[in-house]
Amino acid sequence: MKQRTHVCGELNEKHTGEQVTLQGWVKRRRDLGELIFVDLRDRSGYVQIVFNGDENRETHEMAEKIRSEYVIEVTGVITKRDQENVNDKIPTGEIEVNVTDMTILNKAKGLPFMIEDEQEINEDTRLKYRYLDLRRTRMADTMQMRYRTTKLIRDILDEEQFMEIETPILTKSTPEGARDYLVPSRVHEGEFYALPQSPQLFKQLLMVSGFERYYQIARCFRDEDLRADRQPEFTQVDIEASFMGKENLLSMMESMMVRLVKELKGVDVETPFLRLTYHEAMERFGSDKPDLRFGMELKDVSEIVKDSSFKVFASTVERGDAVKGICVKGIGPDYSRKDLDALSSFAEIYGAKGLAWLKVEENGALKGPIAKFFDEAKAQSIIERFEADAGDVLLFVADKRKVAYDVLGNLRNKFAKELNLFDPEDFNFLWVTEFPLLSYDEDHKRYVAEHHPFTRPVEEDVELLTTAPEQVRAEAYDLVLNGYELGGGSQRIYERDLQEKMFTALGFSDEEAKAQFGFLLDAFEYGTPPHGGIALGLDRLVMILAERTNLRDTIAFPKTASANCLLTNAPGGVSDAQLDELHLKSTAEKKNGD
Amino acid sequence: MKQRTHVCGELNEKHTGEQVTLQGWVKRRRDLGELIFVDLRDRSGYVQIVFNGDENRETHEMAEKIRSEYVIEVTGVITKRDQENVNDKIPTGEIEVNVTDMTILNKAKGLPFMIEDEQEINEDTRLKYRYLDLRRTRMADTMQMRYRTTKLIRDILDEEQFMEIETPILTKSTPEGARDYLVPSRVHEGEFYALPQSPQLFKQLLMVSGFERYYQIARCFRDEDLRADRQPEFTQVDIEASFMGKENLLSMMESMMVRLVKELKGVDVETPFLRLTYHEAMERFGSDKPDLRFGMELKDVSEIVKDSSFKVFASTVERGDAVKGICVKGIGPDYSRKDLDALSSFAEIYGAKGLAWLKVEENGALKGPIAKFFDEAKAQSIIERFEADAGDVLLFVADKRKVAYDVLGNLRNKFAKELNLFDPEDFNFLWVTEFPLLSYDEDHKRYVAEHHPFTRPVEEDVELLTTAPEQVRAEAYDLVLNGYELGGGSQRIYERDLQEKMFTALGFSDEEAKAQFGFLLDAFEYGTPPHGGIALGLDRLVMILAERTNLRDTIAFPKTASANCLLTNAPGGVSDAQLDELHLKSTAEKKNGD
Repeated sequence: MKQRTHVCGELNEKHTGEQVTLQGWVKRRRDLGELIFVDLRDRSGYVQIVFNGDENRETHEMAEKIRSEYVIEVTGVITKRDQENVNDKIPTGEIEVNVTDMTILNKAKGLPFMIEDEQEINEDTRLKYRYLDLRRTRMADTMQMRYRTTKLIRDILDEEQFMEIETPILTKSTPEGARDYLVPSRVHEGEFYALPQSPQLFKQLLMVSGFERYYQIARCFRDEDLRADRQPEFTQVDIEASFMGKENLLSMMESMMVRLVKELKGVDVETPFLRLTYHEAMERFGSDKPDLRFGMELKDVSEIVKDSSFKVFASTVERGDAVKGICVKGIGPDYSRKDLDALSSFAEIYGAKGLAWLKVEENGALKGPIAKFFDEAKAQSIIERFEADAGDVLLFVADKRKVAYDVLGNLRNKFAKELNLFDPEDFNFLWVTEFPLLSYDEDHKRYVAEHHPFTRPVEEDVELLTTAPEQVRAEAYDLVLNGYELGGGSQRIYERDLQEKMFTALGFSDEEAKAQFGFLLDAFEYGTPPHGGIALGLDRLVMILAERTNLRDTIAFPKTASANCLLTNAPGGVSDAQLDELHLKSTAEKKNGD
Repeated sequence: MKQRTHVCGELNEKHTGEQVTLQGWVKRRRDLGELIFVDLRDRSGYVQIVFNGDENRETHEMAEKIRSEYVIEVTGVITKRDQENVNDKIPTGEIEVNVTDMTILNKAKGLPFMIEDEQEINEDTRLKYRYLDLRRTRMADTMQMRYRTTKLIRDILDEEQFMEIETPILTKSTPEGARDYLVPSRVHEGEFYALPQSPQLFKQLLMVSGFERYYQIARCFRDEDLRADRQPEFTQVDIEASFMGKENLLSMMESMMVRLVKELKGVDVETPFLRLTYHEAMERFGSDKPDLRFGMELKDVSEIVKDSSFKVFASTVERGDAVKGICVKGIGPDYSRKDLDALSSFAEIYGAKGLAWLKVEENGALKGPIAKFFDEAKAQSIIERFEADAGDVLLFVADKRKVAYDVLGNLRNKFAKELNLFDPEDFNFLWVTEFPLLSYDEDHKRYVAEHHPFTRPVEEDVELLTTAPEQVRAEAYDLVLNGYELGGGSQRIYERDLQEKMFTALGFSDEEAKAQFGFLLDAFEYGTPPHGGIALGLDRLVMILAERTNLRDTIAFPKTASANCLLTNAPGGVSDAQLDELHLKSTAEKKNGD
């Protein structure tokens, strides 16, 4: 193997006349008899190389044998192409390489799919041959975007005096949060490590240590029932700071986002980002991660309809629940009664019993199955409430507020997508704040932490921890982008007594709290500074920046929805001897062939 | 909490007269009645703050209550100290802060140890209270060195067009190498993931994908019986490149080392680094990671002593083994017969039956228990062989070469340390090359890979793979610094047939090879470029740069030699319900209280 003098993608007319040595893959080969043209690809791009049988019989004969994805090394001279052969779609399109010497470095047999972005390939096949899938330009570009995102985040945090510190992967199982992945210990019989769901406790301990500004691009693990957009392992930009306060942290994160979007996408984003309280986000958009690239806000019509003759609405309000709706602009003429009735099944997915609708007519009247229940004054109030115009359609849910939010929030997104209501290149960030600290878990008959048990309550709500836990707001914040939750964080509890109060609110006995988190409670007594932080989902962030719709496309070697690696066939069987060493017996039924 | 205006360590006489707000820890407090002096520490350093009872009764009263490691916030005015009170040992020593306002942000109870570098603290205590241990300047500096090392490596590799790509932590167990940590799958009954011992297979697959230049600061895992300098999880600077060749890779690594040592230690290192073949390193220094900051090379005297009357030596040579020795300069007068005889027990640790010694006298004669066996001519030859002078001591091992290397290589290091033969600030790098590809495992009666099964044999030795496997040299290289192996790598096999030959040499049946590494063999058939790489142990590198002697000191939250985390008490018990979900039963005997 020689040393390459250039990479393919950098060659242009300025190199005309130079002798170059290139190495790469055969992207395409066209055999025109005496002339064989090959697009030679390396990671920088590709260039056309030419084998001329009249000029060099030997390399021409070798060129007859090469096939797609062969790895070759060529030496040749850069020649300017004739004007009619210039390809202005690629940077190297003005020149070609006249090959004088070639070596086949490695062969390739027929591929399971073509290395072309345009190919529609079954995802299982892509995952099995991930090493080929990653050769495709869009996948390689996505990995490049992931790398550049990560590098830029590191550089920004370095400028901000943050220091990356690695925390353990083999750590301790904790009862809070999602299900842990466990790792049996060989040395300590019957004991297990757990893979971390996040470096939460360690990053707080680093604040106790006085590092003041920590970050880590951290691998995290959750053994959850996987949904399409979850991975058993994922990567988190994990940040924690002492003495910084919420405002400074949020403003630093805003600058980071502005720079990422500017440097990686060339788009300007304005600061400060809009902030909505959780309550306002739910009331106005039916979601705690609303997409604000479009309006279509939720309106409450409970007051208007509570004494209407439509019993479903009236009784809902009477029960203390609500009647809420959205106004979809201008779709009236295009949506038939049947189309609108069909939306009920969409509403049912989110737990509603049904969906009511009204069309606004040219004459300003309401039309639809329930129109008859509203007199002219009420109809007018409803129209005013939604600022509706002729041609608009109003969609209503009468239910518990939570259900109404959920249905209407999702309908809002559904219509925005169908009606192209937003610019896909827009980056619309916002903060959602003042989340509830706790929620009541009906299954386990106890309060659970909405974020995690280390989140600080809003100062003025602390007293409510014992009297009305569900009313306590958290000093927490989520960063939302275009309807995706990019991440979230909070200011933390740093006093032992408040942390103990929190554990009590979560139903921990003193003993349980000590057994599980004693080291943290202890640490809080040795001079713990006020601190807080945030964690961003890197996979999701890259997904948006790379304009992908599937988290798996942002990960070099992802797992399927059932947590398989189709490339290596992980997980797999292990020997009885391995299990013996770990003091374990499998209770799984042996499969045939095992 | 207010916003701090400065950090403690940056304050100096230029700030005189300014009002500042600081936050930090009480490092030391001296109560002189009306004047209370406190050293306030944050991560930037510390500054003296003064509470003057005459000027501000209220803050003075609060200052009487604060204790070491309280977290406080103060506002005050920078005052120049009187000349006699200037402390020129610290950067802030010319000034102090006259406090006008103070808030106690958090209290601290009595600490288990003082936050001082000079304190000798039991390591278990340090690990249990790691968050306090990390407050000590030397530990904080070591973490800073680790961060700066990592950041600089990333920046250098970025300049060199390398791209960081994350590879999975939940992967597949492979039979080669050390013992895997296993992770039971909940979804796939009876199956397990394994934590990676290195990203070896994935990084090679990324080369198949055409990324050409990959790196990763990667967490790796080995469930080995721990020695003092091993951790169950460790961090590796993992590098792989296509089309680069060995020479370019080594020269890039040399530039990286030069920059690290220059920028982090201010020391100049020359390139190219010395290279020794494995054979030469063993012959001359008795080690494959020799410390070259001093000489004391091994010499072979087999030819000289083979027909001497000392039977032990003569019969050793006759058996085909060797008599080797080192010359320790000038210690003759200080080492008694008893001292030298005592070295035998050191030799026995490394498997020798004993150690012979000779002193060189003022008159040029040899003295010692075995001197009588050598006539004048032989004595002269021995002295010449070692270029020995009067006062030197010669130490001999007559044994299998491997044993002789081991004993003398270790004796060499032992004496160098005792006699201060090297400058601890010297950075002496070298490459060791041409390792054996395979070694014979007597226990399992088969060949095993010295590095791993993907290492490329030296081209001219390929044929020996089937005929004389133990003679095949590998295209492998280790980077050695001051007697430590910093890391190693190799050029890889990239052809399916050669890889299969390698598996055959390792005793794999075709079926086993396919079952374990089929995906790699397949990948090699789809256009795999020539590639190779290297991996450096980050923990070890940081240990040397930070001038520590214990790997644990380079890791924020390390585990003990028995793989415990004394801070969090990992590993720990888990519930039967958790095991049930994983289709496992523990065979460990339940402990009391479980």
